[in-house]
Amino acid sequence: MRNIKLTLEFDGTGYSGWQRQNTVMTVQQKLEEAIEAILGKPVEVTGSSRTDAGVHARGFSANFKTESTINTYKLMGAINAKLPEDIVVVECEEVDISFHARYSSIGKTYSYSIINRAQPQAIGRNYAHYVRKNLNMEAMEEASRYFLGTHDFSAFRNLGSTVKTSVRTITDIAITKENDTIKFYISGDGFLYNMVRIMAGTLIEVGTGKRNKEDIAKIILSKDRRKAAKVVPACGLCLEKVQY
Amino acid sequence: MRNIKLTLEFDGTGYSGWQRQNTVMTVQQKLEEAIEAILGKPVEVTGSSRTDAGVHARGFSANFKTESTINTYKLMGAINAKLPEDIVVVECEEVDISFHARYSSIGKTYSYSIINRAQPQAIGRNYAHYVRKNLNMEAMEEASRYFLGTHDFSAFRNLGSTVKTSVRTITDIAITKENDTIKFYISGDGFLYNMVRIMAGTLIEVGTGKRNKEDIAKIILSKDRRKAAKVVPACGLCLEKVQY
Repeated sequence: MRNIKLTLEFDGTGYSGWQRQNTVMTVQQKLEEAIEAILGKPVEVTGSSRTDAGVHARGFSANFKTESTINTYKLMGAINAKLPEDIVVVECEEVDISFHARYSSIGKTYSYSIINRAQPQAIGRNYAHYVRKNLNMEAMEEASRYFLGTHDFSAFRNLGSTVKTSVRTITDIAITKENDTIKFYISGDGFLYNMVRIMAGTLIEVGTGKRNKEDIAKIILSKDRRKAAKVVPACGLCLEKVQY
Repeated sequence: MRNIKLTLEFDGTGYSGWQRQNTVMTVQQKLEEAIEAILGKPVEVTGSSRTDAGVHARGFSANFKTESTINTYKLMGAINAKLPEDIVVVECEEVDISFHARYSSIGKTYSYSIINRAQPQAIGRNYAHYVRKNLNMEAMEEASRYFLGTHDFSAFRNLGSTVKTSVRTITDIAITKENDTIKFYISGDGFLYNMVRIMAGTLIEVGTGKRNKEDIAKIILSKDRRKAAKVVPACGLCLEKVQY
């Protein structure tokens, strides 16, 4: 038995997230259908995480097991030929039989993209959240540092998944600006449900002046979801990389 | 009578170009409908150029005349509220009555975007042309310089418009690369039908090694359309700016 690891880029606009459901289109279903068409057998693909509807990925990881002896480069080309154009396998490799896309992960990097200007954007509108109010980069950068390290992120999670602990470690945060596009890059050992989008929403409120940068520390300590900002739209979120 | 100049950003994916037609959706029709809904009168909007189906714009210019006294900032907001989300007015100003979006133009800048990597892209696939073969940046940069200056660009035009002369001046060409994205920026006093997309296609063939950089000079001199490359896809093309 071989264990095949896939790295996926997908445009989540047209999907109800990764995880297969019965009634709506998902990335997992499209991928499983493509692989089954090639291998001629049902296959179950394990993803590195659930993703919400409309969320994108440049480096989503997945794995599946097969008896097929097809070489990985040919397999990648064959899967891509079967996939719709909004899902692409960008890497395909054989890994140790023990590898599990979800449980073997030791960290992830997400980006959250914002268009910050006087009028909304037409080009790329499915890949960035539009914010009209001018965002103060320095305030957001200073505020973002309060997230670094190991904290109980109960204030930055929505209900919707059952995990044992709400303690997570944020290992890196960077904020970039190019023309009208601001991007948050957030890396950590793991993320709670909606955590990145609540963190991004709260940083945006620091950027507009609605909150002070020190508020981040207070919100974390409060462990009170009501103290943090609302979830910002899915279109701005992109899973950049899963670390193993 | 006032003359109003609009600068538009649009995602051309869903449109059969700028110019109003009877049977298909165009940017001009959407814009005229939006303005008419606000002003309560039929209006004819003049565009800076035709654009082909699927071509994008960050700085398309248009103008229309009106007796309305509405202030330009309010007008911009009102038009944007009526427009679909893939068309946005990014600037709105009152200009001299003699201003004509097409005839007053003294130059334009286009970009042509390419994704150059082993597998196609899912994210942003409507905004860039995919090229698998590795493109030689240095060869394309050197080749691009042959376009600079005033030439008869008969070899780089397709039939489809009636213009008096095929002589045009290319004032600037820049080629940038960021990760997998290569962009050509081409500025000139005007462009023939499909000219940028034929220039881009020919530069790509220099990048893949199919042609030498010196071939550009020979093709220009030949004035023979068959010597240059085919038109590359519309999705990579974006009208960045119109100069007046």
